[in-house]
Amino acid sequence: MPTDRSAFLAEAADLLGPRGLTGDPDLLAPWLTDWRGRFTGRALAMASPASTAEVAALVRLCGRHGVPIVPQGGNSGMCGGATPDPEGDALLLSLRRMAAIRSFDAEAKQIVCEAGVVLQTLHEAVEKKGLRFPLTLGGKGSATVGGLISTNAGGTQVLRHGSMRAQVLGIEAVLADGSVFSALVPLKKDNRGFDLKQLLIGSEGTLGIVTAATLRLLPAIAERRVLWAGVPSLEGARALLLHAQEIAGDALEGFEVMPQHTLDNVVAHLPGARAPLGGRHEWHALIELVADGSGADGLPDLAENLLGRAFEAGLIEDAAIAASETQAEAFWALRDSIAPAERAQGPAVQHDISVAVERMPAFVDTAVPLMEATWPGSRAVAFGHLGDGNIHFHVIAPPGVDPLEWQTGDGKAISDQVYALVTEWNGSISAEHGIGQLKRDALEKLGDPVALAMMRRVKDALDPQGLLNPGKLVPLAPVDATN
Amino acid sequence: MPTDRSAFLAEAADLLGPRGLTGDPDLLAPWLTDWRGRFTGRALAMASPASTAEVAALVRLCGRHGVPIVPQGGNSGMCGGATPDPEGDALLLSLRRMAAIRSFDAEAKQIVCEAGVVLQTLHEAVEKKGLRFPLTLGGKGSATVGGLISTNAGGTQVLRHGSMRAQVLGIEAVLADGSVFSALVPLKKDNRGFDLKQLLIGSEGTLGIVTAATLRLLPAIAERRVLWAGVPSLEGARALLLHAQEIAGDALEGFEVMPQHTLDNVVAHLPGARAPLGGRHEWHALIELVADGSGADGLPDLAENLLGRAFEAGLIEDAAIAASETQAEAFWALRDSIAPAERAQGPAVQHDISVAVERMPAFVDTAVPLMEATWPGSRAVAFGHLGDGNIHFHVIAPPGVDPLEWQTGDGKAISDQVYALVTEWNGSISAEHGIGQLKRDALEKLGDPVALAMMRRVKDALDPQGLLNPGKLVPLAPVDATN
Repeated sequence: MPTDRSAFLAEAADLLGPRGLTGDPDLLAPWLTDWRGRFTGRALAMASPASTAEVAALVRLCGRHGVPIVPQGGNSGMCGGATPDPEGDALLLSLRRMAAIRSFDAEAKQIVCEAGVVLQTLHEAVEKKGLRFPLTLGGKGSATVGGLISTNAGGTQVLRHGSMRAQVLGIEAVLADGSVFSALVPLKKDNRGFDLKQLLIGSEGTLGIVTAATLRLLPAIAERRVLWAGVPSLEGARALLLHAQEIAGDALEGFEVMPQHTLDNVVAHLPGARAPLGGRHEWHALIELVADGSGADGLPDLAENLLGRAFEAGLIEDAAIAASETQAEAFWALRDSIAPAERAQGPAVQHDISVAVERMPAFVDTAVPLMEATWPGSRAVAFGHLGDGNIHFHVIAPPGVDPLEWQTGDGKAISDQVYALVTEWNGSISAEHGIGQLKRDALEKLGDPVALAMMRRVKDALDPQGLLNPGKLVPLAPVDATN
Repeated sequence: MPTDRSAFLAEAADLLGPRGLTGDPDLLAPWLTDWRGRFTGRALAMASPASTAEVAALVRLCGRHGVPIVPQGGNSGMCGGATPDPEGDALLLSLRRMAAIRSFDAEAKQIVCEAGVVLQTLHEAVEKKGLRFPLTLGGKGSATVGGLISTNAGGTQVLRHGSMRAQVLGIEAVLADGSVFSALVPLKKDNRGFDLKQLLIGSEGTLGIVTAATLRLLPAIAERRVLWAGVPSLEGARALLLHAQEIAGDALEGFEVMPQHTLDNVVAHLPGARAPLGGRHEWHALIELVADGSGADGLPDLAENLLGRAFEAGLIEDAAIAASETQAEAFWALRDSIAPAERAQGPAVQHDISVAVERMPAFVDTAVPLMEATWPGSRAVAFGHLGDGNIHFHVIAPPGVDPLEWQTGDGKAISDQVYALVTEWNGSISAEHGIGQLKRDALEKLGDPVALAMMRRVKDALDPQGLLNPGKLVPLAPVDATN
């Protein structure tokens, strides 16, 4: 029998006012299913506090009543980390109302955003001042600063600029006891003990609720060159990557790869799309070079030089440089359309995995034929961020299968096999999407027991009641007794 | 009455063998006083395990007997973090015998070092392959990889390359229960939960004992230009820093500042030294530009251009570019001799502090006259890493005082005042040297209570017996009860 929560809800309504709390099923519905539609939960209500002080008071209230809290930003996470469980006893805590830019220092290249600021809004705000925020991803129209920090989000610019972790100069978070960890002042050097900020980043709301952050900004891009190259193998793509890093250094902003059949599929799917090169190549690499200010004049030469020397060294079979910004956009559109083109093909299981960069070609060359042999009729596809050792490894169902049946049957077994394989290769079952509820059991099964025990201990220490995003990320098993 | 530790020592001797354990006072003595000579302790014995497995077995043994452990690398820390207390009940655990380079992949630019590898040895090993490790500091002949990681060490290259934290790709550490946290495989992207590696870095051996690490390497420097500029104020130095960042971008490797009277003092102290500029200027900036490979040809022009445009903009009063590598070394020798020149002047209290970069000029302009007015006859000196917002703020005693009496009397009061002031300015009482035992009480008094409580909880969770480097870094006060 569910606990009676009427006293809690009355107190929460008093605390947050009419704009801050709703139990209306129609208003709640869009936020109770994750955006890929894999998980649906229920909630007592949705709270939308307007300030850090309100979040803190609400967390204390939840503590007194033993009410679990599921923090949520744009609800565009990939692993169900922001979706409550079906029990319906948790409070959904939306941070979307806290969407203020608290301060913006263009000279110091820093911005203080509340958790609910949407990534695209952030991009637009800083572009007006000739700056940029160097992290972007498909869900930028809904993803929030708080969610990006809580999942340590990645994207296509990690190669040069790092994941979200690298962009966070300071953080403010409400802890499980309602205290406010306030470390927004960005100190480039600060050795006053454990780096607690790092512990909160990527913890998916299980250790604290991020309410604001100070983010670093970079000068706007003055010039870019987008290149496309055909290479004979993924190992060849890596050789080209090393070459590009040597020639272009910090001007190398992105390096993405896809196999020929994936490109074919995108070209067939995307209206008006054309393959950048005339011929066919086993693998294709998309390379972006950028210059911010001083190096802009030299960029065209750098691009020519990079490709010229790659030809001479026999690293590439064919290549093209986008002749205009329109063509550059068209090159990127091919990369960005891989996922939708694949979805049009039928059901697939998707894996966001990483191994050491230098081992990725061998991993893919092992995993693709292995999966296709083990699961006849399936098609294994690897594409993405080779420069980060992070490949999106998708296995597409054989034609004609029942989507739902396949997802929960063979699809599940395929994922188990992929995760076991990547663990064997000392890789990660989550490179950039996090764990959430989707991969929690896989992490519990395959993760290093020492690391899992540490995580469990830290979680118990900082959230002894277990009310912060329960059931997400942290394995449920108790810590082994110390001997 | 001290506990009888003979059973423990017999078991430890069995475990580690004759090379692995000594109680010889002569062999122990050099390691029982910190290198600045501020702290002297005693120890049961000094253990020197030869492998991670031995460290793990030893930690378990200590756990069974309740013996505290003080890990130590090169014993060149600045805050007494590796010096045992005078009780003498702790085991000194030297990591110096674990000095192997386990693997070195020049192509992937990665090296796996055991904790006892000395920084200078690391530099030399990678230089042979045309690479460099981008962190250096005065104690490089003794500082070890394990100590550098445990204190998150800084130095003069943090501006471009970050502190030790930014160099660590993977880590291996023995935890308090004797389990081995093994995360040496470098994954550029890995979102499998809390970033435990970050928690261990900078924790001064209070959460685990670092036994090995995978470190990132960079291409060797192909060319450098060292510049010296005279500016009218520290605010003017910061304007020059912003200018240099805009013009030089990633080529800017270092930016150090010192006032005229400090330069005078160095020139008077250092045999054969000459001031780089003919005239006198309130402040001096030392700027290093570097190129690794591709940009080498453009570096001389970049240096000229940077200074030329700075003159035009009225940012500098005078400037010089080192005409040779010898002269470049001479410029750096002036910077590196500030501390010895100061020591020759008499006793001083030294503070390694940081505030937000953009506020540092105002901080120094406030703090210097304040200290000199409050402590008549004293001289306040600020110099160092302006680009990191990290200044070494020293207060030199009035001439003729008794050194010991002053250090423990007025000197102590001066430090209290400096730390209170920097905390008021939202800065850090330890920018790069850590907390150790030197600043533990100051941290407890001035630190954010929320952060301190989090630290205490994490410490208790991961080291419930409190045997890992007790009395260092983590405040002793118990965690407040959760309401």
